[in-house]
Amino acid sequence: MVLILTLLATSVRPFLLSLHPSFNKSTNGLFNFVEAAFRAAEFPVFSNAKNFRRDPLVPLVVPLVNTSHLAVLPTQQSTHLPSPLSRGFIVTNANCSTTGLVVPLYALEKAFGPLESVMVTTLQAISGAGYPGVASLDIMDNVVPFISGEEEKMEWETLKILGGITDTGVFDMHATHPLRISATCTRVPVIDGHTMTVSVRFTRRPPPSPQQVREVLAAFTPDALTQGCPSVPRHSIVVHEDADRPQPRLDRYLANGSTVSVGRVRQCQVLDIKLVLLVNNTSLGAATSSIMNAELCVLKGIVKGAE
Amino acid sequence: MVLILTLLATSVRPFLLSLHPSFNKSTNGLFNFVEAAFRAAEFPVFSNAKNFRRDPLVPLVVPLVNTSHLAVLPTQQSTHLPSPLSRGFIVTNANCSTTGLVVPLYALEKAFGPLESVMVTTLQAISGAGYPGVASLDIMDNVVPFISGEEEKMEWETLKILGGITDTGVFDMHATHPLRISATCTRVPVIDGHTMTVSVRFTRRPPPSPQQVREVLAAFTPDALTQGCPSVPRHSIVVHEDADRPQPRLDRYLANGSTVSVGRVRQCQVLDIKLVLLVNNTSLGAATSSIMNAELCVLKGIVKGAE
Amino acid sequence: MVLILTLLATSVRPFLLSLHPSFNKSTNGLFNFVEAAFRAAEFPVFSNAKNFRRDPLVPLVVPLVNTSHLAVLPTQQSTHLPSPLSRGFIVTNANCSTTGLVVPLYALEKAFGPLESVMVTTLQAISGAGYPGVASLDIMDNVVPFISGEEEKMEWETLKILGGITDTGVFDMHATHPLRISATCTRVPVIDGHTMTVSVRFTRRPPPSPQQVREVLAAFTPDALTQGCPSVPRHSIVVHEDADRPQPRLDRYLANGSTVSVGRVRQCQVLDIKLVLLVNNTSLGAATSSIMNAELCVLKGIVKGAE
Amino acid sequence: MVLILTLLATSVRPFLLSLHPSFNKSTNGLFNFVEAAFRAAEFPVFSNAKNFRRDPLVPLVVPLVNTSHLAVLPTQQSTHLPSPLSRGFIVTNANCSTTGLVVPLYALEKAFGPLESVMVTTLQAISGAGYPGVASLDIMDNVVPFISGEEEKMEWETLKILGGITDTGVFDMHATHPLRISATCTRVPVIDGHTMTVSVRFTRRPPPSPQQVREVLAAFTPDALTQGCPSVPRHSIVVHEDADRPQPRLDRYLANGSTVSVGRVRQCQVLDIKLVLLVNNTSLGAATSSIMNAELCVLKGIVKGAE
Repeated sequence: MVLILTLLATSVRPFLLSLHPSFNKSTNGLFNFVEAAFRAAEFPVFSNAKNFRRDPLVPLVVPLVNTSHLAVLPTQQSTHLPSPLSRGFIVTNANCSTTGLVVPLYALEKAFGPLESVMVTTLQAISGAGYPGVASLDIMDNVVPFISGEEEKMEWETLKILGGITDTGVFDMHATHPLRISATCTRVPVIDGHTMTVSVRFTRRPPPSPQQVREVLAAFTPDALTQGCPSVPRHSIVVHEDADRPQPRLDRYLANGSTVSVGRVRQCQVLDIKLVLLVNNTSLGAATSSIMNAELCVLKGIVKGAE
Repeated sequence: MVLILTLLATSVRPFLLSLHPSFNKSTNGLFNFVEAAFRAAEFPVFSNAKNFRRDPLVPLVVPLVNTSHLAVLPTQQSTHLPSPLSRGFIVTNANCSTTGLVVPLYALEKAFGPLESVMVTTLQAISGAGYPGVASLDIMDNVVPFISGEEEKMEWETLKILGGITDTGVFDMHATHPLRISATCTRVPVIDGHTMTVSVRFTRRPPPSPQQVREVLAAFTPDALTQGCPSVPRHSIVVHEDADRPQPRLDRYLANGSTVSVGRVRQCQVLDIKLVLLVNNTSLGAATSSIMNAELCVLKGIVKGAE
Repeated sequence: MVLILTLLATSVRPFLLSLHPSFNKSTNGLFNFVEAAFRAAEFPVFSNAKNFRRDPLVPLVVPLVNTSHLAVLPTQQSTHLPSPLSRGFIVTNANCSTTGLVVPLYALEKAFGPLESVMVTTLQAISGAGYPGVASLDIMDNVVPFISGEEEKMEWETLKILGGITDTGVFDMHATHPLRISATCTRVPVIDGHTMTVSVRFTRRPPPSPQQVREVLAAFTPDALTQGCPSVPRHSIVVHEDADRPQPRLDRYLANGSTVSVGRVRQCQVLDIKLVLLVNNTSLGAATSSIMNAELCVLKGIVKGAE
Repeated sequence: MVLILTLLATSVRPFLLSLHPSFNKSTNGLFNFVEAAFRAAEFPVFSNAKNFRRDPLVPLVVPLVNTSHLAVLPTQQSTHLPSPLSRGFIVTNANCSTTGLVVPLYALEKAFGPLESVMVTTLQAISGAGYPGVASLDIMDNVVPFISGEEEKMEWETLKILGGITDTGVFDMHATHPLRISATCTRVPVIDGHTMTVSVRFTRRPPPSPQQVREVLAAFTPDALTQGCPSVPRHSIVVHEDADRPQPRLDRYLANGSTVSVGRVRQCQVLDIKLVLLVNNTSLGAATSSIMNAELCVLKGIVKGAE
């Protein structure tokens, strides 16, 4: 009962979007209020909205990546005002572009140690802007090389997600190994699916080879899969061998849009390794992550039933 | 008379493309033969085709950039086999993507000294592939993150163009200050106009500020303008201040497509400066450069009239 | 002076649209007020807005067609309340789709006598909906087979424009030869240029042949051209012979968008003749018609200078 | 065994298309040979290719419509040269556009008696042209108002399909009630799904009302559904009530693309009733019909097992 209500609350936005993409961005303020109210009423809230992502006590969890950040929830509950909570909390998931980026970055850090630099250019789909969103007169036969606030979100959220937690329970923003991230975000005439060109530099010298990177990405098994989350696909990262993949129209529905596609893994002449990735911004980049987070919290006993 | 024939020869491909884009890429072999034959017949040839771009005696001239490379033409003529030439020669211009990239890079090197690294992601228009070119089923509602041979061309041609000439008349490929270039080329559903996201690192420390870069780019005056080439626009680089520019549909016809648009000049967290640029691949990125090169050779007396 | 102000008033909407298509349809009420106020202040008003098109004393003039309807202006002025006007009046021009349709229909009626039936399906461009207008999520990879109010406008306006004026000065809506018109209006992913498939039946039996129709359309010379309107192109109708023309992207800018393109003139198995036409909805289908109307009223002495 | 081979043969083209749309139209000649050879070898052949559609002994069966035409198969077998066949035959299905058109037309004729006239304008998807098919430079931001041979196919095939069979076993092409059909076929920038605007005139006076037409279409139950074909959807025709439906992107996958969507049923000022329809050209308009035909022939015992 509790969980179903929770999931409904979490899913309002993507659910309405899925019926007809009529959900307006200006309702973010409303969401802020709703999320806090549900938490105060002792409901677990799994939110795809941006309001609480930067809250120092709210984990920003990409379910294929930093499930360890759920460890801050007891502090979030115990410090809640005016009174502590026993069952209510808020877990957020990341911006659609951030989500696609951090999955392979995390797999690489896990295998090869900390990254030093990341350069990313996104080619984002129109559905990322909601409805009515992008005017057709703005995007047909066109590229718009700017998405307000998007580059800052990608750079900041990536640091929170890939970073750890200090002994005092603070998100360290990857401070133990400072990570420089440079994002350029563009909008292209594609309906669904964000494509990104990514280059990375490792701290490890020599860096891994393209073949080592391909193998590590293909073999990546997130904690959420090991835990048995039913919505987590068998392959969190699909590594493509064809030179012209991934492509949004061909690959965005792989595993129902819950996987990240990676292709063109090769040496970068400036950093170490470059690749192309694709994430379905309306599935894994949206409510699918909320659902995976909820599943995980149930499996871990963080969502407690109403006895 | 000589010049008109020359220009016609140069313009065959773009001319046919302009009538109806039915010119097939597989005719490159034919072009190779035609160019060499016209040169041997003592015609100056200004070619937009790729065949002679890597020839060690053929200058690869972006007319807004490396006009100094025309200095190799006497050697090209004197070493021609079976007999030296007095008036015939071949000058090539660059790939459409390379052309857009090197104009601002050259302006930056001229003002701030050698670059050390360049990262570029292209979002290229379908007209870059000729006709019939890209199948509509491949590109509608899609991005194709691969264009065969394009990344290699951008990386190699940029080195030849931005490099100098040794005392012995050899293109030095920027060897005095090794320049690392990493390109990722993608195709997007845009009819005309290649957009690129670019990051650069200078050898100079500290590097110039975004404002200094904007000023240098806006003030850039190529040799070809000083020389009085009629087809060179007053502003070779148009610097946009609006955050969402340049855009292909709004900016590709500025100055009849003979200028490079630059926008979003800002700091790069990984290299030094990043920006977005746009080049019209069917004008400056194609025959317009051939025509500018021809104009310049007439003005400099390199094309000699038939007495 | 008077005329310039008048033209500015007339052109506000398309002028703003031409700068940036940010003019909102909901401002129709504002236009209604502005038009009436300028007329009351003795300004000639040439309006592209829809408010006065159905007014029984306001001519709805497609400048290549029914310039004879300007004859109602003296009555419009003499019956103006609270007091008659000497120089002010309102002339409207038609909806973009109607404009494209009536030009060839008028040429056919002029040559072959009254039409009996007209069937038309439109494939309309997104710019017809203004800005922001059609959401990209609604139209990319899609057809929307409905445009609110558009079919009624096409059917009603065509009758007013192709009809005559009774002895008592009333628009007869083509009543002397009842004309049945059936329109279906759709939106397609095209930026500019409305395409229409049209079938007509003549009252004359036998009907003209396709070749006769082609000749009449190609030779059509509107009164406005004879009068010397500078904005009227030499060929008001361009008849295409290629089987796959007209096409919006190839033909919408013919004569600066001030002509109607017609192609595929052939027998219709149900009515008599069918054809495909194209009109530039942002030029002839918009302010270009306002300007032609103003030019014509100056040439005819209907716009009187301010002594 | 027999049936599986048969279905494989039938499905080669759509099957390859489904993997990657690389099947070339020029292979029609090959198909002609293959189909005849399989038939001669006593295989039942269900073909989506056009070669045998006009054969006077081959039924052109839209499985939701004229299954009665299978009655000519015994004659096809007994007159086969050089020797009669006992199990082999060819059944074709229709062109993608024809298929979408005839389903509602048939439902209307069944309920209200013979039609007298049909006017149709198609807005066809690019996938209808196969791969590589339509060049992106031809269709982006464009409409091509011509598809070679398509209008003739629609007009001719509709007569064969909606017509009966004479006592002597000849297709009567609707001769008992001559039916005039006028088609205009255009290509629009849509990936899958052919939209059509259709007007019809009945011989019955007065004609049925729009509401009667809606009810008849919604209730239409084809013989193939009654027979139990597993691939025939519960609703062969989905009648939409929203004014702006059907739309290709929203409705083309209804019932896995095996249904025809109809909307905007209303009075036509020239004929009797007009409507908009949508058919999925790659499913019901292609191999799905072949499969339904095969299922039907198995159920009716026309496909005989190999004892």
